[in-house]
Parts: sequence; C-alpha cells; structure tokens
Amino acid sequence: MTHRLLTAVAALALTAPSAAQDKPPAPAEIPSPGDIVAAAPAGDWVAIAASDLLVMDLAPDAAGRPRRVVIQLMPAPFSQGWIGNIRKLAAAHWWDGTSINRVQDNYVVQWGDATEKKPLPAGLAVVPEGEYVTATKAEGGVIPSDGKLPPMHWSGYSPGWAWTDHADAYAKKYSYFRGWPFAGDDGRSGWPVHCYGMVGVGRNMPPDTGSGAELYTVIGHAPRHLDRNIALVGRVVSGIEHLSSLPRGTGGLGFYENENERVPIASIRIASDLPPAEQPKFEYLSTESRSFAKYADARANRRDPFFIKPAGEADICNIPVPVRAVADSR
Amino acid sequence: MTHRLLTAVAALALTAPSAAQDKPPAPAEIPSPGDIVAAAPAGDWVAIAASDLLVMDLAPDAAGRPRRVVIQLMPAPFSQGWIGNIRKLAAAHWWDGTSINRVQDNYVVQWGDATEKKPLPAGLAVVPEGEYVTATKAEGGVIPSDGKLPPMHWSGYSPGWAWTDHADAYAKKYSYFRGWPFAGDDGRSGWPVHCYGMVGVGRNMPPDTGSGAELYTVIGHAPRHLDRNIALVGRVVSGIEHLSSLPRGTGGLGFYENENERVPIASIRIASDLPPAEQPKFEYLSTESRSFAKYADARANRRDPFFIKPAGEADICNIPVPVRAVADSR
Repeated sequence: MTHRLLTAVAALALTAPSAAQDKPPAPAEIPSPGDIVAAAPAGDWVAIAASDLLVMDLAPDAAGRPRRVVIQLMPAPFSQGWIGNIRKLAAAHWWDGTSINRVQDNYVVQWGDATEKKPLPAGLAVVPEGEYVTATKAEGGVIPSDGKLPPMHWSGYSPGWAWTDHADAYAKKYSYFRGWPFAGDDGRSGWPVHCYGMVGVGRNMPPDTGSGAELYTVIGHAPRHLDRNIALVGRVVSGIEHLSSLPRGTGGLGFYENENERVPIASIRIASDLPPAEQPKFEYLSTESRSFAKYADARANRRDPFFIKPAGEADICNIPVPVRAVADSR
Repeated sequence: MTHRLLTAVAALALTAPSAAQDKPPAPAEIPSPGDIVAAAPAGDWVAIAASDLLVMDLAPDAAGRPRRVVIQLMPAPFSQGWIGNIRKLAAAHWWDGTSINRVQDNYVVQWGDATEKKPLPAGLAVVPEGEYVTATKAEGGVIPSDGKLPPMHWSGYSPGWAWTDHADAYAKKYSYFRGWPFAGDDGRSGWPVHCYGMVGVGRNMPPDTGSGAELYTVIGHAPRHLDRNIALVGRVVSGIEHLSSLPRGTGGLGFYENENERVPIASIRIASDLPPAEQPKFEYLSTESRSFAKYADARANRRDPFFIKPAGEADICNIPVPVRAVADSR
C-alpha cells in the first residue's frame, strides 16, 4: 500500500533525469509529468553539445565507487563572461587537486581552492555587475499564469524568448529560453534563477569579483534572493547526489573544519576535451516543444491519481527542465 | 577574501538555529536577518513545550556518533487528528526498531515500518480529507506584500491570525500563527505549507489513509503542490542533517534497495516522556514580535553588505521561523 502511495507522491517531484526514465502511463491513468516526458517524441529532445558540459570527477567514495558530477553551462547571451573564464580554468586543469570545502544544509555545496593561494590562469575576464541581467527579446507566451495549456497557442509558437506574466515574490515575468528558466520584470531583460542544482560563481563584496574559480551549487530551497546578486553559469544535470549527500560542514557557513573532511577534486574538464569514448552525452526536452508545454501544465495541475487538490500554478523552480542521459549508440 | 564573501552570501540562508547564534552586528553594518534574530530580546522568544517535541534517535553513525533528530509538532487547531495518532504511536514505542527507508534527492526522507506488516496500536483515528484545511480567524496583517515594515502597524498588533495578501503560485494569502507559516485563499481558512524541513504523513491513494505511522520530511525545494494533498504535522528543529545527508536510495523513488542500507531508528519519544535531564529544550522567535517583523522584512529586502539588488519580497519558505536550542539552566 505504502509503495503505491509513494509512487504517486514522488512522481511529481522526481528530478528531471529520473522523470525522463519513468514508466509509460497505464491507459486508465491521467498522465503524470513523468509520463508526459517519457512519452515525448525523439524530435522533442535536444542534444547538449559536449563543449557545453563541464565534467567534475571527485575522488572515489569510501567504497571506491567513482563520483562524477556533470554540469551543463548556460547558453549565450547569458553569463558568457564568467563561462569564458570557466572554460579557461578547465583548459588549464586549474581545479585538479582542489576540493569541495563547504556543505551547508539547505543552501549550497561549494568547491575551489581551499588555500585561496593558488594562482589563477592569465587572461581571466573581470565581468561587470551589469552582466547579472541580460537584454532579451519578447515574444508570445510560454506558460499561461493559470497553468492551463491553450492548444492553439502552441500551434503557432516560434522559438526564442516568450515571456509569461507569472508574478511571485521575485519577478513579474518568467520565460524558458533554449532549455533554461529565466525571470524578468519588463519583458525586455532577464536573469537566471537560483533553483535547486543551479551552479553559481562565488564572489567577494564587490559585485565584479567573481572569477568563476570558486563555484557553488544549490542543494536546498531555491535561494531566489541571490538572483541578480551572484552570477549563475549552469546546472548540475547528473550526479548531484555526490554533492547533496555529503556530510554537512560543522564550521561556520558549513565549511569543513578539518582538511581531511574536504572531498578532493580529481579533475574538471569540458566534455569535448575528454577522449570521445569518455564524453558523457545528455539531451534536454525542448522548452519550445508541445511536450514541454504539456509537462509544465501537468506540473501546475496535478490530475493524476493521488492528487485531490491541483495547485493551479507552479513555482518556476518546481518545473525543472527534463534532462536525460543518452546511451552511446556508436 | 572568499571567506568574507561567504559570510555575506551565507548569512541570509543560515538555518534558524544557526542564525540565532550569529555574532551581533558590527555598528557600521546594516543588520542581516541573523543579526536581527541574535539581537532579539529574551521576551521575544517562546519556549516549546516538551510535550510538543518528538525526539527521534537513530542508530549511531559509522563513527559511533549519536544521531538525534528533534521534531516540533504543530499547534491546534491544525492537523490534530494525525498528531493525536503520532502521540499514541510514540507512547506505544511503535517506531522503535523501524527504519529510514527512502531518501530521494531534492524531495523527501521517509521513515516507518519497511515491512508494512507491523500491527498498528489500537485506537488510531481515521482523519478525513477535510482536515487538510482548517478554519481560522482573520486579523490585521503580518508581512506587507512589499516586504516593508510599517512600525505603527505593529504597535497595536494583537496575537492570533493575521493574513497578508502575498499571492504566489500556491496561495493568495499567507500568515504566521504561533510560530508557524500558513497559506490561505479567503482569509477564513488556512493550511500548512511544504517548506524545507516540514514533516508530513504518508498516505495511500484515498486521502484519509494516512495514520501518521509513515512520516517524511522535505529535504529539497519546497514541493508546494503537496499542500492540501498530504497532512503536515510538524517540522524538524534540530538534526535534519542526519536525514538530509544520508546516501540517496538507488531504487525507484529513492527507496533503499538493500535492507542493510536502511538506517535503524532506535526510538521515537515525545520529549516529556524522557527523563527530565534528557529532554531537549527549544524556543522559537514569536511571530507576533517586532523582532520577527524586522527579521521577515530583512529576509525580503537584503540591505546588508554583499547585496546589490534586494528582492523586495520573499517566498514564505525563505522566511523560516527562527528556532534555537536552550541550554539547560537547572
């Protein structure tokens, strides 16, 4: 009994990769978001370029099991100054031998050079405060604020920006662009959002002091008050459990107090710099596809078994873009 | 340098107990939410009755360290049917020898009888669907929707319900009542919200099938779509790291696939049933205090160092009610 319950309870919050692997819907059931993703046609999935995947290999765990975390970097025009620095740091193998130094419950896991003395590669850009918000073009509407899906709306949908009025405590409008959620106020500019698994750039007090060498990922409730205050550069698409389940640091702000608590980083590489056979392959469900519109509508209006009161809407961080691993078919 | 940054970055998301232990503000600085909590007068703190604390002792960890999780049960008139069952289950020592069976990343940790065959104590109530929402009385306003703090409003504040218009994807109004956040639509009824650390009652498909024997806590982004679909009965006030940092289950929905992966529960007791010397003591910052109003305003409008763009508002789950341990002074 309990397991049937949990099937229904949990399906709605499965992380995207898991959701994409859900079983197809039983004929009698109203499809869950996971069912809709599982039924999406191949043409609705978009391959993520190996050059946009950052592969972090941690030291094996206590049982000798490998720990690989794969991060997808954000597309232009967002955060490209910091992402350019991250590409240079990876090419220089700068992170090899650094470590995960901070794990704060319901907040972030952070990694980089714990000594804060390791010299940075030459040529890193100083990215100005203005880059936290990016000019965008406005078109149509993606997800109506009532969470309902108007089929006709989608028949004429054109790729690119599409703002929808969906005000909450942190923004007046939201949009999905090339597989990523963004927030905005005026429909002409936008910024990425601090959802679970998003990867950001640590900085010092001055807003232009984040180089990209010190990175963090969100492992708790979305700290949206960081939006427009820190740069976001990507999201974890695989292996976040290797970070989120680490022991919490007992020092201030979740820093590990003893050096031996830190988790060594063996290497961080751009996937396209790995041997072809070792390159991970992922794809995301196109946010411009009808499948995504159905999925988003289902996330906002749970009508599948178990639910007695659909919310009617959904927080942008509760509509994670489905991402799945691709088996190498070569 | 990095550490100065992190001080500012992290202060805004410290869990309440930690925040309550923050250093007092430096004179020149605009106080952070943690600073405001640390400066709150003793009279603004409310002791939590031992009879409202559920103490879960897990088996010691691999290094032999104790793992205690303390849960505060919700006050009347909310969820009392399920909470009555939980009191009976604890009095019967029903959970002793059961285990933590499921850890799903960015979702929940769940515990209870993995065999699903252990007989329940006699006399547990069957709580009807209607209990997911509770009638309330409306008064004044707690947190203005713009997050600003109007001092005069507070001078005449009277305890009890106080709804504020603060619409988001999941409700039209929000309120704090006796230290707990609640959501509502009409100002005359309300329901508890699925924020990080909240504890809920697993159930089967029929909405009245949750007894309280199968419990879960949220360890990821608030799954607010569960509001009004599952009963919430409390929140973890201490030791959530013993749950949130457990290895994720590799089975469907995060269930542990092997029996030896489950974490044994040594005992679950109501604190008042423990020997006086072993009873944990906690207190929460009165949500009817001026200190809480200042704290909530600061959570919504970060003006302390590091921040360049205050959000102006805050998601209800990003204004956790400060709770702190009390040293035994006897």
